[in-house]
This record gives sequence, structure tokens and C-alpha cells, in this order.
Amino acid sequence: MTISIIKIGGNVIDDARELESFLKNFSKFPGKKILIHGGGVMASRFGESLGVMPQMKDGRRITDLDTLDVVTMVYAGLINKKLVAKLQGLNQNALGLTGADANLIRSQRRPAGEIDYGYVGDVQEINTQFLEVVLSAQLIPVICAITHDKNGQLLNTNADTIASCIATSLAREHSVNLYFCFDKPGVLIDEKNDSSLIPLINEEIFEELKKENVIHSGMIPKLDSAFKALNEGVNLVWLGLPQNLLLAEKGKNAGTNIEKRRYDLY
Amino acid sequence: MTISIIKIGGNVIDDARELESFLKNFSKFPGKKILIHGGGVMASRFGESLGVMPQMKDGRRITDLDTLDVVTMVYAGLINKKLVAKLQGLNQNALGLTGADANLIRSQRRPAGEIDYGYVGDVQEINTQFLEVVLSAQLIPVICAITHDKNGQLLNTNADTIASCIATSLAREHSVNLYFCFDKPGVLIDEKNDSSLIPLINEEIFEELKKENVIHSGMIPKLDSAFKALNEGVNLVWLGLPQNLLLAEKGKNAGTNIEKRRYDLY
Repeated sequence: MTISIIKIGGNVIDDARELESFLKNFSKFPGKKILIHGGGVMASRFGESLGVMPQMKDGRRITDLDTLDVVTMVYAGLINKKLVAKLQGLNQNALGLTGADANLIRSQRRPAGEIDYGYVGDVQEINTQFLEVVLSAQLIPVICAITHDKNGQLLNTNADTIASCIATSLAREHSVNLYFCFDKPGVLIDEKNDSSLIPLINEEIFEELKKENVIHSGMIPKLDSAFKALNEGVNLVWLGLPQNLLLAEKGKNAGTNIEKRRYDLY
Repeated sequence: MTISIIKIGGNVIDDARELESFLKNFSKFPGKKILIHGGGVMASRFGESLGVMPQMKDGRRITDLDTLDVVTMVYAGLINKKLVAKLQGLNQNALGLTGADANLIRSQRRPAGEIDYGYVGDVQEINTQFLEVVLSAQLIPVICAITHDKNGQLLNTNADTIASCIATSLAREHSVNLYFCFDKPGVLIDEKNDSSLIPLINEEIFEELKKENVIHSGMIPKLDSAFKALNEGVNLVWLGLPQNLLLAEKGKNAGTNIEKRRYDLY
């Protein structure tokens, strides 16, 4: 049994029309599947309305207790439950989850180094047994980027990382494909030119493109997650636009496919 | 197998110390159990911070789209996930749910009569099969007062009603006890005097006390839910303080026990 893990970013969620179109595609996606979502854009907006201003250091969000409340409300409440209700309306038996539910994702608060990121969790353990029960019951897990430390504390965790960690954990026993849907057609040579898509990328090319500064900022941790997943047993990692998800599933060229290091092929 | 359904009100949730004490008691509660919670007080407060003022008509909340977003965030996000994380910290394998998750509670938007309550749902159907799977997996469902219409729309639903509907649905196949924890020791003759507790009440006494205006306002729908549950097969309905929950479980006098109509005894 192949399990497909599909991650969508905040931009897809924030645009009602894009979201509707994505959910229709997702509902046509065959086989066992898991949806993972972020929602940072919406969280920042709601936080500001509540007087909780986003605090960033070196481009990363600092999660104080007020910010944790905001992301818990927006990710686990507003976004997760709207996604679940809309999928139910499309006859998809969705079940919304955080990492605290059924102890799905245990994480550890990141130790304060030069920067104290606050209530941010690094993933320690995935409860794959629970996911297997859920998938066997023909349910579709819809997972948001909130985890917990199993000591009563919720923690904010990067959604790409969660997608990659769930993929690698399930890959120990199953065939797993991982799809990252975001607001670009894939990895681009020129980020302003959508036709400069790189259809296939491996770790060597990635290293070169990083050196040349073609790949930078937010794309680096996303690709790090992708390679980590491949090196830990995930079959296939794909990056692209949500509307191309079904093409990608059929193996058609419609985004960036990520390959293992070349020497793994021998 | 007896299933215990325990409902807590917004007042318990809103007081950190009371909540901690309740959760400790809840975690000691034996057997299969389900926690159901509201959170109206917190929702009103967060709504006001966001500029969404509570709209009431005849003492009932009107749920427009903005209010629905607020209650979804607060009930399904903030409160539900904090409860789940805290229970996980007490080694209780909690799973947070709304009525949309796994199509647990399908409801219908209340038709607009003299008052249009907005996005308020009246319960139509409980997915007891899913609850049975969850309980069999040794999980503890933690359910908030958000339902859906199975057409993509979330709906706001009274938490007492949800508790009563889940209790009666499960009572078709199981022995079910229903406990309402709130901020009073039980049903009181004089609501300002905690020692005026009525330890036992049946429907005839309820009717008399309503006529005498001893029981009024919010207590009436709560007791209506209680009698409905009893008349539809629930074993036991109890009302009282959260700290007396374990005494109630042991059958000790520590709140108000609700009995069926007397003629049901013959």
C-alpha cells in the first residue's frame, strides 16, 4: 500500500478560490493519503488583530505564549476544521489532528541558543501505529503544525518538517510519496520567471545551486526536508503548484522531482 | 462496558487552577470515558479583542460568520488542544474532535424563525461507530461544541445538547452514564445558597419547580437535556461541581442525581 503525503502552504489556504480548486484535486487523488498544512500568513493577520505582533529574528518566527495561543487557534481551530468540513462536503472522510491528539507527534522544545525561539518544538517521535489505525479505517488525516512535549505543553513546529518526519516514519513499513504544494511551479532558476523550472534535482545539483545563490532563504529548509525524506526511505518527493498535483501523481512532468544522490543509484 | 460522558462548562475551563484540579480528577475516572466541553466565556472575550462583539437575542447567542470563526478558533483550537495536551501530560491518551472530524456529528442549520440564530446547528446524527473505534483503541475523545452539515459548513452547537445526543446514541448499544460538571453543587432551591442542594430530582419535581420559578433560565435546557437522555436509555445523569465527580462515580451523594419519571419505575 502506497501512502501519499501532501503538504500545502499558507498561500493556498489563504486564497478561497485556490483552496477550493486544491481540495477538489485532493479529493480525486487516489489511494491512502494524508494532508498536512501550515497557515503562517493567516496566523500573523489574526495575531495582529489581537495585538500579538509577529516577532521575527533572522527571518524566523519567535513563538512566545501569546503567539502560541494564536497559532493554536488559527492552525488547529480555524484552518484545520474548515479544511475538514470542506473535505467532508466532498465525501472525503477527513479527521483533523494536531501532534498532541493521540500523541501523534511528540516534540521537544528547542533549547535556547543564540536565539530563543520560544515555544517551538523539534520533532522527536511519530505515532505511526495511530496513523495506521486511522488510514485502515478509511479516514484521511488532516494534520496541522502544532505538536506537544507529552508534558502538557503545546509547541509550534514547521509544517514542512512535520511532513518530512511523518513521511520517513511511515516509510519504514510502507511505500511513501511526498508532495509539497506551494505558490511556485517548483524549484526555479530565476524565481521571478515561472518558465525557468528545474524539472529534476538531486543533492549534488542542490549543493551547486546553493553555492551560486540560485536556491536561497525559505527554499533551502524545504529542500533539506525533501532530501532527508528521500535518504530515509521515501520513494518520491515532488514540489509544485497545487493545481498540478494530479499530473504529478500520474508521473507527468509538472513540477520539480527530487532525486537521491547519484551514487545511491549504484 | 459502561461509557461515561463528562461535560464541563466554560467556567471550569476559564479558571486555570480549577481546570488543573478537574483534569486530575478526570484522569482518575475509571473505564471508558468521553470529555465534552464548551467555552463560551473565553470565546466572548477573544471575540471582543478581535472586534467581534457577542450578539445576544433573548439570552441566546447569534452566530454570524465572524462569530463562527471565533468559536471555531477558541473551542476547536485553543481550548480543545490545550485540554488534549494537558491530558496527554497526565498519561491520558486524548484525541480532540469536532463534529466535522470523521463526520462525528452531522447537524442541520436551524431554520430562521422569529429569530435567525445564524450558523447554529441542530444535531441530526452521531457517528457512534467511529466513537466505538476510538474507545476500543483506548483513546479518550475530547469533543467540542462545533458540528457540521456534511456540506462543507461548520456550525455552532450547544455543548449540553451534544453531550446528551452522544449519550443517547451510545445508549442504544452500551450502558452510558452522563455527568454535567458546572459551577454549582447541583440543582439548588435557592441559587445563592449552595447548601440548598436538591439531591434527587425527577421530571414531576422538575415541572413543579419550573412553575414555582425555582428552576429557570440556563438550568431549564440543561435539565431538558438530562431528562431526554434518561428517557432515551441513558442509565444515570448527574449534575454537580467538577471536584465532586469522583464521589459521584462512586455513587456517593455529592450533587444532583436525575431520575426518570416515576411511572417509568412500574
